[in-house]
Amino acid sequence: MPELVEAPTYLGALQAFNVYGAEYVSVPIDENGLRTELLEEPLRSGPKFMYVLPNFQNPAGTTLSEGRRHELVMLSERYGIPIIEDDPYGQLRYEGEHLPSLVVLDRNNLRRDNGYSIGNVIYLSTFSKTLAPGLRLGWIVAPPEVISKLAQLKQGADLHTSTFTQFVAYEVARDGFLDRHVKLIRKIYRERRDVMLQALQEFFPPAVTWTHPQGGLFLWVTLPAGLDMKGIFNAALEQNVAFVPGDSFYARDGRGNDSREGSRHMRLNFSNAAPEQIREGIHRLAAAVKSHLTGTTLRLKLPLQV
Amino acid sequence: MPELVEAPTYLGALQAFNVYGAEYVSVPIDENGLRTELLEEPLRSGPKFMYVLPNFQNPAGTTLSEGRRHELVMLSERYGIPIIEDDPYGQLRYEGEHLPSLVVLDRNNLRRDNGYSIGNVIYLSTFSKTLAPGLRLGWIVAPPEVISKLAQLKQGADLHTSTFTQFVAYEVARDGFLDRHVKLIRKIYRERRDVMLQALQEFFPPAVTWTHPQGGLFLWVTLPAGLDMKGIFNAALEQNVAFVPGDSFYARDGRGNDSREGSRHMRLNFSNAAPEQIREGIHRLAAAVKSHLTGTTLRLKLPLQV
Repeated sequence: MPELVEAPTYLGALQAFNVYGAEYVSVPIDENGLRTELLEEPLRSGPKFMYVLPNFQNPAGTTLSEGRRHELVMLSERYGIPIIEDDPYGQLRYEGEHLPSLVVLDRNNLRRDNGYSIGNVIYLSTFSKTLAPGLRLGWIVAPPEVISKLAQLKQGADLHTSTFTQFVAYEVARDGFLDRHVKLIRKIYRERRDVMLQALQEFFPPAVTWTHPQGGLFLWVTLPAGLDMKGIFNAALEQNVAFVPGDSFYARDGRGNDSREGSRHMRLNFSNAAPEQIREGIHRLAAAVKSHLTGTTLRLKLPLQV
Repeated sequence: MPELVEAPTYLGALQAFNVYGAEYVSVPIDENGLRTELLEEPLRSGPKFMYVLPNFQNPAGTTLSEGRRHELVMLSERYGIPIIEDDPYGQLRYEGEHLPSLVVLDRNNLRRDNGYSIGNVIYLSTFSKTLAPGLRLGWIVAPPEVISKLAQLKQGADLHTSTFTQFVAYEVARDGFLDRHVKLIRKIYRERRDVMLQALQEFFPPAVTWTHPQGGLFLWVTLPAGLDMKGIFNAALEQNVAFVPGDSFYARDGRGNDSREGSRHMRLNFSNAAPEQIREGIHRLAAAVKSHLTGTTLRLKLPLQV
């Protein structure tokens, strides 16, 4: 049985699943997140679970709309396919209203009059994006039966998460530092996002598009089809600008379409660099893209290679 | 291909291997550790690796003799089967001389005149038994090619070990605390081991035997065959004394002999309780054993149940 993932989806999740011989069915996303209208057919094939990032998705920066959240939870219940809701960035919203998480919608749906129901959503989050990635500390919200199984599996994998880092996180949350810190980084990251969006607008050619993330750390650039992404990557690196090429974020599902789709995309991170660096970086990246864009326009006059 | 493990062996390793569908071939240990004279036949069946705890083994407390260390490394090279040397307790030696680790013997054997050799031993150790188990911090000594593969696998599993706890361990090692602390716990644990050995001698019936660990945290009690271990376990728990029944430490290899062997054993920990508690605990445990020993002696007069 395959795992259902978004296309594109978080690279680290694919790496974690791959070790266990996972197979994938990918469902595309758009500016409003996972395209739930395409889910019925893959759900009928009985995937083990759906792995979804509703908020400011990694890599695309998109957010699942409220309507689709309801639809996704409803489909999960109808087909009996659990959802793994991965929400590392939910607290890093820079504009718009907070949307209800899938696990909350699912809990509200629990038909308690119908006897016992364990719920269909396993919710994951982390201190990595708000406190420090170096702590390696996160949490899971799930029915007690699921938590108990996960604890057994975690015992086999690493016995337990460091109690020391748990105490550290507890202390900084308890004394209010974490709340203040999240407010601070929201302000800083929003400014950096805006600087990147402005620079993209200013420097990138009209044939290139990108997402407008309401939060998180990343945005997703879409280039015209047929560009030499490896050439762009190398040209950018020569100018000391790095990005993650899009093909890493597509699960291999044997049909081969996805990696071709991925070769049109770049994941850009806007949280890490200072505003002036972001502006200069986008300037250099645009030059690398433009040089290849011209090349492609010329090449497209030659017979197409398949 | 199976994994070759000691019988008994560390429960946590079995749990870690089980997730990947491991199959086992078990080779028994005695007071001098893994019985290397029994290795040739199982090695010819081509196990993926041999998992061995040479120092103060968990659960048995036994130590692999120097002669057998040489033999093991030689066999590993002859059959091309790598050794995973797990050494969490090596620094906790209370008597006798430090013995060379397998990874050192293997490095000394490297035939550098014969071109490049990657070495056959992957050495594991940890801060869990010397500094604090809650840090979840350890290290691996292996050829660079192996480390590079392991780093990739670890990235898929948990991205990386907490940098924060690594800094903490670095600081306490650098300023000399760790060395002083290990000297202190060696003294304390040696005293506790001696108290437990003395209490066993004093309170346990002559039909029961146990190992005499030169270090580590555990010793291994062997009861006469045919006792009701579950009954002894429950009787001890009623007196607020816990131990780990031996059958958990035997890999299931399909032949079924091992768990029956395990039902004669108890793993006792001597590092955790204060001397007076150890003495009282062994006193109570001896009573639980004795009550069942009498029962068995009586039951043995009845026809044997198979």
